[in-house]
Amino acid sequence: MQGVPVRTPDPAVYLAPMDLLEGLLTRRSVRKFTREPVTRAQVLEILRAGSWAPSGLNNQPWRFAIVFDAAARGALAKLTRYGRVIEGAPVCIPVFIDREVMYHETKDHQSMGACIENLLLAAHGLGLGAVWLGEILKSADEVRGLLGLPGNLELMAVVAVGHPAEAVKAPPRRDLTELIVKEI
Amino acid sequence: MQGVPVRTPDPAVYLAPMDLLEGLLTRRSVRKFTREPVTRAQVLEILRAGSWAPSGLNNQPWRFAIVFDAAARGALAKLTRYGRVIEGAPVCIPVFIDREVMYHETKDHQSMGACIENLLLAAHGLGLGAVWLGEILKSADEVRGLLGLPGNLELMAVVAVGHPAEAVKAPPRRDLTELIVKEI
Repeated sequence: MQGVPVRTPDPAVYLAPMDLLEGLLTRRSVRKFTREPVTRAQVLEILRAGSWAPSGLNNQPWRFAIVFDAAARGALAKLTRYGRVIEGAPVCIPVFIDREVMYHETKDHQSMGACIENLLLAAHGLGLGAVWLGEILKSADEVRGLLGLPGNLELMAVVAVGHPAEAVKAPPRRDLTELIVKEI
Repeated sequence: MQGVPVRTPDPAVYLAPMDLLEGLLTRRSVRKFTREPVTRAQVLEILRAGSWAPSGLNNQPWRFAIVFDAAARGALAKLTRYGRVIEGAPVCIPVFIDREVMYHETKDHQSMGACIENLLLAAHGLGLGAVWLGEILKSADEVRGLLGLPGNLELMAVVAVGHPAEAVKAPPRRDLTELIVKEI
């Protein structure tokens, strides 16, 4: 582990600031992308943000694969109903949990969700679009096999990333009054 | 559900912009707070950000309690080893999952993690500090009982929020090279 964190985004990939609170409210699931490539530096910036998610006991159970290769994306695409998103995205990030460092099923899965949310927010902050694909978990073992990864790595999600080719309408949200169950 | 989202933070509680990518890297777990109160408007802004987390099938399983009351916080504090954090924070947010809208244990727990991360990031964006408390899950039923909530609500975490009384050193993070298990 490194003791000295990189505290600022890589200026080489970082075009314009986006406000944090505004970013939390304007992130959307983007499923259609232009043909413009995503650079490796952009992917690393996204993963760096993921790595700063909080985790119980600071166990940092997240592991990432980076799939630019079109043939590999084509093979992944066959493993989910949402294969078109994976084929159409210039890069996909299969996200795994390392079962060997887990300590509490529920809390570790929550940490993975925090990590994935950071990935999505970082993509948004870089002017990219991304979507969290979960249906492919039904093919978790096949995804691991296709990537030649060991059995301790369990698929948690695939995040598809690219340059947005669509303006996404916000899906409806429950009103806060419906979400607050008690105030004291 | 409301169809038209509020897309911008409430200007009444929002002091200065913070960059999204920088916010993702500089959020820290803050456990010591000053006596300065957190306003209800700030709490609602934090919860609003949580409500914009992504969820599978858009089921939005998160529910929130808001606990300002010192006696109630004192009672909650007795249910965890980290009670001092709860007593010292001007407000605590017990976060629940509504088991009646769940569709997939792992994916719903991940969504809850994404929501909790949004809460923490929003607090950071508002110039506040917050910490995700998970150890109290061992007392989930007692927390629900203490707040008089129905059995379909299961405690997922308590988030303590306040004005930071300490500068938190970043805990070490695994290097990206350790986290990337495949690149193709």
